[in-house]
Amino acid sequence: MVGIGPGGPLDRTRRAAEAITRSQVIVGYTHYVEQIRDLTAGKEVIATGMTQEVERCRTALLRASEGQEVALISSGDPGIYGMAGLALEIAAADRVEVVIEIIPGVSAAAAAAAALGAPLMCDFAVLSLSDLLVPWETIRLRLEAVAAADLVAVLYNPRSKKRRGQLAEAAAIFRRHRPGKTPVGVGTAVGTEEENIVLSDLDTFLDLEIGMRSIVIVGNSSSRRQGNWFITPRGYRI
Amino acid sequence: MVGIGPGGPLDRTRRAAEAITRSQVIVGYTHYVEQIRDLTAGKEVIATGMTQEVERCRTALLRASEGQEVALISSGDPGIYGMAGLALEIAAADRVEVVIEIIPGVSAAAAAAAALGAPLMCDFAVLSLSDLLVPWETIRLRLEAVAAADLVAVLYNPRSKKRRGQLAEAAAIFRRHRPGKTPVGVGTAVGTEEENIVLSDLDTFLDLEIGMRSIVIVGNSSSRRQGNWFITPRGYRI
Repeated sequence: MVGIGPGGPLDRTRRAAEAITRSQVIVGYTHYVEQIRDLTAGKEVIATGMTQEVERCRTALLRASEGQEVALISSGDPGIYGMAGLALEIAAADRVEVVIEIIPGVSAAAAAAAALGAPLMCDFAVLSLSDLLVPWETIRLRLEAVAAADLVAVLYNPRSKKRRGQLAEAAAIFRRHRPGKTPVGVGTAVGTEEENIVLSDLDTFLDLEIGMRSIVIVGNSSSRRQGNWFITPRGYRI
Repeated sequence: MVGIGPGGPLDRTRRAAEAITRSQVIVGYTHYVEQIRDLTAGKEVIATGMTQEVERCRTALLRASEGQEVALISSGDPGIYGMAGLALEIAAADRVEVVIEIIPGVSAAAAAAAALGAPLMCDFAVLSLSDLLVPWETIRLRLEAVAAADLVAVLYNPRSKKRRGQLAEAAAIFRRHRPGKTPVGVGTAVGTEEENIVLSDLDTFLDLEIGMRSIVIVGNSSSRRQGNWFITPRGYRI
């Protein structure tokens, strides 16, 4: 289970590149498999679409149990909203006996933060706003807790064409606990050629173009804008 | 500002390695500078000790303002309890006009999670238990909020020789909200030759060897042990 990082070859680790290179079979979401085309010549590539996560893991495990070396690809880090957990679950449920290695990658959160400045220098929470797998009521309570505890928040899956209300509700929750000028950063397609980084604030960020390839970072009471950077100071005396 | 990942060359990105290679000056904490010795031959290396973070950033910025290309090294990701924020703050305070690039890395949290299984598949919080820079009362309130909101928790700087009470208090807080059998994973010196990974639970993990090079991951109500893996299922129907 290989994390390929946020985008191109530069943000991959050598461990990830070597694992892909020595695999005979590459399994992944179509879009991510394209990002590693420089490594997959001559290999069997099994690319499937969104929401086919279960099938993808089963295919990878089946091939591995047949004796092939398989790289199951995740964007960013495979352990953060990636394929690692699901594949381990399916391996146990299907009693597949294969050696599994999880290779971490640069997460989308870390890549977006680096492009924005240093918003995650203090304590923070990582939440997905997708209610496909977790009830919205659970997510809402977590947003409330995170907002009240003055944690910086990294929001994955903030908005899609069909799902727009959640981000507005999240913004309203943070707005009740934080000033409207609190910095909010939006990183879209970070690390790819379509990368778009915008620094905004709680009162206005909802107007930005935000989609499923975006990460939204909401500052806390210490966060501030410094020129074009988004910083959450950790409290050093300088 | 370069994140070198958790340990050796395999978990570095190519962007990090290239930045170090083209720098004339390398600045970092002694222990981290040793981890990139394969890249620093013939370069000026300025290695300083713990708690000299401010001096380290000032030195790096001064050298850059003199026209040299400087790599300021952080372990893991520079934006997660690393040097990125402090260096940006000092650049502004000292009015240093240099081009700054922040190069993300595989965080210690992602590396520890990968070694343990997939504990971070759902929403989680990242907290430092060090009260050198943040008042313990703030940290305690955040622990309470995270525990009550059923978030998985990643604890940085969990314990040191002088500072032992905080982790015990954190454990007590989680124990009030979660069963004693809740999985707790401890990764120490992850990605290095001294790596030590232990899977334990809330009732017993305080007895483990845990220090400043350890990351502690506390599961939530969905987390479970599966063989030697620590998993937090995301809710897929398999």
